[in-house]
Amino acid sequence: MKSDPDRLQLGEQKIGEILGQTGDQVRQNVGDVAPGLATFVLEVIYGGIYQSELLDSKTRQIVTVAALAALGNARPQLCTHISGALNCGCTRSEIIEIMMQIAAFAGVPAALNGVDAARSVFERLDKEG
Amino acid sequence: MKSDPDRLQLGEQKIGEILGQTGDQVRQNVGDVAPGLATFVLEVIYGGIYQSELLDSKTRQIVTVAALAALGNARPQLCTHISGALNCGCTRSEIIEIMMQIAAFAGVPAALNGVDAARSVFERLDKEG
Amino acid sequence: MKSDPDRLQLGEQKIGEILGQTGDQVRQNVGDVAPGLATFVLEVIYGGIYQSELLDSKTRQIVTVAALAALGNARPQLCTHISGALNCGCTRSEIIEIMMQIAAFAGVPAALNGVDAARSVFERLDKEG
Amino acid sequence: MKSDPDRLQLGEQKIGEILGQTGDQVRQNVGDVAPGLATFVLEVIYGGIYQSELLDSKTRQIVTVAALAALGNARPQLCTHISGALNCGCTRSEIIEIMMQIAAFAGVPAALNGVDAARSVFERLDKEG
Amino acid sequence: MKSDPDRLQLGEQKIGEILGQTGDQVRQNVGDVAPGLATFVLEVIYGGIYQSELLDSKTRQIVTVAALAALGNARPQLCTHISGALNCGCTRSEIIEIMMQIAAFAGVPAALNGVDAARSVFERLDKEG
Amino acid sequence: MKSDPDRLQLGEQKIGEILGQTGDQVRQNVGDVAPGLATFVLEVIYGGIYQSELLDSKTRQIVTVAALAALGNARPQLCTHISGALNCGCTRSEIIEIMMQIAAFAGVPAALNGVDAARSVFERLDKEG
Repeated sequence: MKSDPDRLQLGEQKIGEILGQTGDQVRQNVGDVAPGLATFVLEVIYGGIYQSELLDSKTRQIVTVAALAALGNARPQLCTHISGALNCGCTRSEIIEIMMQIAAFAGVPAALNGVDAARSVFERLDKEG
Repeated sequence: MKSDPDRLQLGEQKIGEILGQTGDQVRQNVGDVAPGLATFVLEVIYGGIYQSELLDSKTRQIVTVAALAALGNARPQLCTHISGALNCGCTRSEIIEIMMQIAAFAGVPAALNGVDAARSVFERLDKEG
Repeated sequence: MKSDPDRLQLGEQKIGEILGQTGDQVRQNVGDVAPGLATFVLEVIYGGIYQSELLDSKTRQIVTVAALAALGNARPQLCTHISGALNCGCTRSEIIEIMMQIAAFAGVPAALNGVDAARSVFERLDKEG
Repeated sequence: MKSDPDRLQLGEQKIGEILGQTGDQVRQNVGDVAPGLATFVLEVIYGGIYQSELLDSKTRQIVTVAALAALGNARPQLCTHISGALNCGCTRSEIIEIMMQIAAFAGVPAALNGVDAARSVFERLDKEG
Repeated sequence: MKSDPDRLQLGEQKIGEILGQTGDQVRQNVGDVAPGLATFVLEVIYGGIYQSELLDSKTRQIVTVAALAALGNARPQLCTHISGALNCGCTRSEIIEIMMQIAAFAGVPAALNGVDAARSVFERLDKEG
Repeated sequence: MKSDPDRLQLGEQKIGEILGQTGDQVRQNVGDVAPGLATFVLEVIYGGIYQSELLDSKTRQIVTVAALAALGNARPQLCTHISGALNCGCTRSEIIEIMMQIAAFAGVPAALNGVDAARSVFERLDKEG
């Protein structure tokens, strides 16, 4: 994808606010083999969709955590967005209660694996103090 | 499942608040062939999980709409819970913005089908005035 | 796929026993545009996998109904295999109880849609007397 | 999402080539309730990702048809992209053979439903002459 | 979720019979961050749904193994329930034959990963003698 | 499944061409507990479906990579088939561009995990020289 410097700047700022990541970290994570995907993440997701104020950041993270826990096939991203949800003002018990709702609507295994992902995030944060 | 009259009463009240459905409607929908599933819905989901105040009702509906839109295989329930989200204070533009977030995290077809479900709910509500 | 007349004959007999379908019905359903898929269904599935006696036919249908109800994205095949499960000795209340187990392990929407599929099969059978 | 007129123009031209749709049709399909999603489809998908020449259009449509058939939960989009694949030079028998591969890697029900979607597209095209 | 001591007792007994787990193990697994989910598992699943005699325990485990193998996104729970199925009288070759049926209805990768999960359970049991 | 020596021979030759695996490797991978699944893979998939010339091998691998990346729940098989796609003439940048298309149609997490799988294959190949 062709890059747009204005959206890149907006996206880098937003992903910093939500996930505490820099653009360089995103580019390092995917960028050596897939620079276009780094552009997509930074400019389209964080520089585009996340710029809308129709949902506040906390709600946007709740939507993302719910979607990823229901799908149950993307644990690294689920952990990243649980951490982001905490950055945006979610409490730990809200994250866990999302998983109770997931138990009802996507089944107990999805909820158990969501709780396990949450616990790994909480433990990392506790270690980092 | 064995029924518990106290939870049934709590569940019937809660499903009325959230979805505007009566217990009799739930029992009619599934109850002739699957009375145990009606009990599960009323007593475990609405009389149990939904009783917790760790998430407010609006947030709980946002979680549910996000999960069902991401899974993309349960349109009748997605429509029911979009309607329930509106009952709990979500605006129509918040519902649509959830689908933008779904486009990013579960793909454009899931978002398109989520918007189509939302539109069918909005049209029904407009007709009913 | 290259056809094998011996497996075709075994498959046509088996699909008759399980689903009450003839080979011609299978070929009509998919065969005009996808004759290879009809061969696959008849020879590989019913003339191959279903020939093993490591699972009896009733158990095989229970596995199939559980898998399709959990996936939640293949209603026509779910209805076909619920009907096949009844042919193989499952009772209607066993089919419904499978859906209770699905509620726990794949979520309530999957169970509700599984019950709805079952009810449509039961109603068709009742009409046909 | 904020619109970018240059990408919109590129996207409208590309979606015309691939799917034979105009921008107005896309906006009508989703646009009254979700104009941001129309922008996303036209500018990000067709004006962004589809602009790369790292995959030719036929291959891009094969990827899309395979992904949607495997997921099995987005029939309207599967039909749209089967039609698009034919526009880009796929033959009908290539579409059907994709479904054989899907039978192996996502199961026979996904293949049967993919063939059914393909057949409905072929029949519509035959009627339109 | 509010706990019900009678259902808790029934659930602890049942999960012991099926999975060989104690209530304390379940609470340790999820309970420090998600005590409500431990309650859900013990009282709703094992103290509720599993109490019905409409399916025997072996069949209930076959349903669960089939559902989890088809979904393909919950390996820890698949391993737990394969082990539970063996406890309830399934043979190892029945477990493997379930995966052949999964190959047909959910695709070869789901079957391969199901066989791999089964093999890890069999090896653990062989080591434990 | 009953074995057919002719199809076995065709399948062993084909899986060698596509994946660089021998029949013995396939049998070792699944065969000790699931010899029937090894037969299925060799004779039905590679000795059956892959024998058709309606899709060339490169296209068949593209279909498989797209399907597995979209499903997002079968990383070992995704790695195997990315490697197979490279054997059949796909370039690394084509593999990565498939993941861009997956970002659009199955969401960014599926694309990120697909890129990560691709990178692990590329790194292994670079090490092996």
